[in-house]
Formats: sequence, C-alpha cells, structure tokens
Amino acid sequence: MRNLLVTMRYDGTAYHGWQVQENAVTVQQTFQDALETIFGARLPVTGCSRTDAGVHAEMYCCNFRTESSISCDKLPLALNANLPDDIGVYACREVPPDFHARYSCASKRYRYLLHNSPYRNPFAVGRATVYRAPLDEAFLHAQAQSFLGTHDFASFAAAGGSVEDTVRTVQDARVHRDGDTVIFEVQADGFLYNMVRIMVGTLLGISEGKIEAGSIPQILRACDRGRAGITVPPQGLYLQKVFYTLDVE
Amino acid sequence: MRNLLVTMRYDGTAYHGWQVQENAVTVQQTFQDALETIFGARLPVTGCSRTDAGVHAEMYCCNFRTESSISCDKLPLALNANLPDDIGVYACREVPPDFHARYSCASKRYRYLLHNSPYRNPFAVGRATVYRAPLDEAFLHAQAQSFLGTHDFASFAAAGGSVEDTVRTVQDARVHRDGDTVIFEVQADGFLYNMVRIMVGTLLGISEGKIEAGSIPQILRACDRGRAGITVPPQGLYLQKVFYTLDVE
Repeated sequence: MRNLLVTMRYDGTAYHGWQVQENAVTVQQTFQDALETIFGARLPVTGCSRTDAGVHAEMYCCNFRTESSISCDKLPLALNANLPDDIGVYACREVPPDFHARYSCASKRYRYLLHNSPYRNPFAVGRATVYRAPLDEAFLHAQAQSFLGTHDFASFAAAGGSVEDTVRTVQDARVHRDGDTVIFEVQADGFLYNMVRIMVGTLLGISEGKIEAGSIPQILRACDRGRAGITVPPQGLYLQKVFYTLDVE
Repeated sequence: MRNLLVTMRYDGTAYHGWQVQENAVTVQQTFQDALETIFGARLPVTGCSRTDAGVHAEMYCCNFRTESSISCDKLPLALNANLPDDIGVYACREVPPDFHARYSCASKRYRYLLHNSPYRNPFAVGRATVYRAPLDEAFLHAQAQSFLGTHDFASFAAAGGSVEDTVRTVQDARVHRDGDTVIFEVQADGFLYNMVRIMVGTLLGISEGKIEAGSIPQILRACDRGRAGITVPPQGLYLQKVFYTLDVE
C-alpha cells in the first residue's frame, strides 16, 4: 500500500470548507469524486485541517492510501483534468506509511487579506475582506507581536470547537501593506476554531478604539471569548503554507 | 456643463468589451445604466479605448458631461452602489470642457499575464492565460526590446481594425517573472486592434522556435500580419494605466 501526499490550491468561494458534510458541497468530496474517477474506488482522504466555508488555500495537503502504481508526476495532471477550475493540484509525493496530513503537521501559516479602500476592487471581490477606514499597518503590526509565543488562546476560539487543550504556540505574526491590501500573516503549531479570524477582528477592534491598544496580553490571560474582537468574514482568509518535518513541496 | 472624468477597474470576464453593442452586455452599457439611475437620464459616455471581450482593466477612464452639481468625492461611491461587483470606480475629477477620454490620451500601458506552470492555479483562472511549457523571461525580454521605438505595426494588427495609419511609438516593453507568472508589459502612444495579443503570440512563437529569434525587426518591416505570431486569448490582458497630460488618478 502506498501512502500519497497531494498538495493543491483552492478558491473556497463555492465550497462549505474542506470536510465532507451532508447536503453541502465540500472540497474533500469534490477531491474524492476526482480520485474515484481515476482509481475506480471511493478512497478515504485525510486533510491537513478543516477549513470553513469560503476560506481559500494557497497550499492544502491531504493524503490517501492506494495500491495503484500511478506515477507521482502524472497524478496532479490526471486530478486536474477531473477537478473543477477552482481546485488545482500541483504536487504529489509518496510518504512513509505512518504519515498523516493532519497529525504529522508541524505548523501552519495563514494570511488574511483586507482590501483597505473606500472603493471596490473587482479583482479582490471574494478574495479579500473590504475594510474602508484607513488602517495603520505599522501600529497593527506592533499590536500583533503580543500574539507571539505560547499562550492559552481560549479567548480567540469560537464556541463549537471540540478541542480541550487551547494552548498554542504562535511562531510568527505580522501585519504589512501591499498597495490597498493590508495583510495579516500568522504561523503557529496549530489553530483553534476561527482563531485567525478572531485575531484579525481583535486588531480591527483596536484600530477602531473599541478594544484598548496594548491589551492583547490581558485578553489572552482572561480566557474569555467575549474580551476579543469580532470574527471577521471568511473570504479574506487563506491557508498559506503547511509545514511538515519532511520537506513537502 | 461640467465635464467629468471617471476612473475604474473592471474584470472583463462577463463583458463583450467596453463599447456598447447590440445583443451583448458591455461595460459601457452597464456603466451608463448606473449613471442613469443616479442622474435620471441616459448620458453619452466616452471611453479611453475599446477593449475586447474578456479583457480586464486595472485603470479605465471615461468622461461624460452633466449639469449636476454632485461632488467628485461622492460620485465613485454612488456609482459603485449601482454597479455590479466586477466593476469598481475609484476616482472622479472635473476636467476642462475639451477633454476627451480617448483623444486626450497621451499613452497607454498594457500588461499580459501568462500562468507559466503545468498545474492549474485556481486564482489565475480567467485572469491569466495558461502556458505550460517553461518560458525564459530574460530571453523574451531581450527579444521584446525590438518593439521599442516608432514603427509601422501593420504586422501586429488584426484584420478588421478601422485605422489607416498603423505607425505607433512603443515607449517601453519588458518581460519579467513573478513566481509562476510571466508578465509582458508594453506602453505606447496608441495600440492597433489586437496589437498586444499578437506581440505576446509572437514572443511565444519565438520561444517555441516557430519564429526565428531576433526576427521582430524583419516582421515589423514586412507589414504582413502573416509573419507575426498567433493572437493569444483575451483573459490575460489588462489595460494597466492610461496617461493624460493632466495628472489623472
């Protein structure tokens, strides 16, 4: 039995996230449909994370087991021929038998795009969240440094998450600007449900004066979802990179 | 009578270009519909250029005359409220009575995006042309330098253009790479019908060995459309910037 790791991008606009659900189209189901066309069987597929409806991925990893001898060079093109335009596979490699796309993951990096302008950009529709009031990216970057390190992130987790342990280690957090786009990037060993979107909502709350500047350490210590900011919409969120101890393309 | 210059971006995927046509949805018609909602009258609008079906604009200028006293600060937001998501107005200014979006234009800059990878990128679908074989951007950049200067571009004009004078001056031409995207940029005092798309087709023909390297000067001198390369598809083409002698945002 070979264990294959497949890497893809997707525009999540049309999907109810990664994970198979009843009565909703998901990326996992669409991917399994394409695999079934190629392999003639419904193969179980393990994804690197759940993503919410409307969230995008610049790099999403999943693995599945097969006895097929199809070459790793050919599988991405075969999959793309059977996938819709909003999902694109770009790599495949054989991994050790115990590799698990989710549990073997060492860290993940997300980014959140804010289209920071009073005016609509048609190229950003569905791919960034519109925020009209001017943002000071240097100020927000300084605020975001309080996320760094190992903390209990319970204040930054939506109700409905199933995780008991809410301690995570944030390895990098930064805010920068590219023209009209303000970008929040965060890397951690793991993320709680809606964690990135609440982090961004908290930074926007600080920008608006609704949350005190410099108070992220207190919000973390409070372990109280009510102290953090709103959950910003999904369309600005991208799973940017998934890190494994093995070197994955 | 005020003469107002409006600047917008649009994703051209859903449109049969700028100019009003029978039995086809165009950007001009959609824009005039929005103006009519605001001003209560069908106003004639002059665009800075025709663009073909599926071509995009990062900056498109048009002007129209009105007796309304609406402020230039408010008009973009009022227009956006009445335009679909794929058109976004971002500036308005009052210009002299004789300003004409097309005839007052000093030069235009286009760019053409090639998604240069064997693998689909869902974020580039409809916004770049897929070109799977590897491209050498430095080699293509060197080839493209032959476009610079004043030439008769008849070899680079589609049949069906109505222009008699096919001499144009190219002020800048360059090819560079950003990750998987190879970008051709060209600026000129004017462009013939399909000129940018035939320039790119010719560069790709050279890359493929179908057209001799270094032969662009001869193709120009031949004034023969048959000597140049194919017309590449519209979805990679963007009107990038429009230059007037007055300073337009």
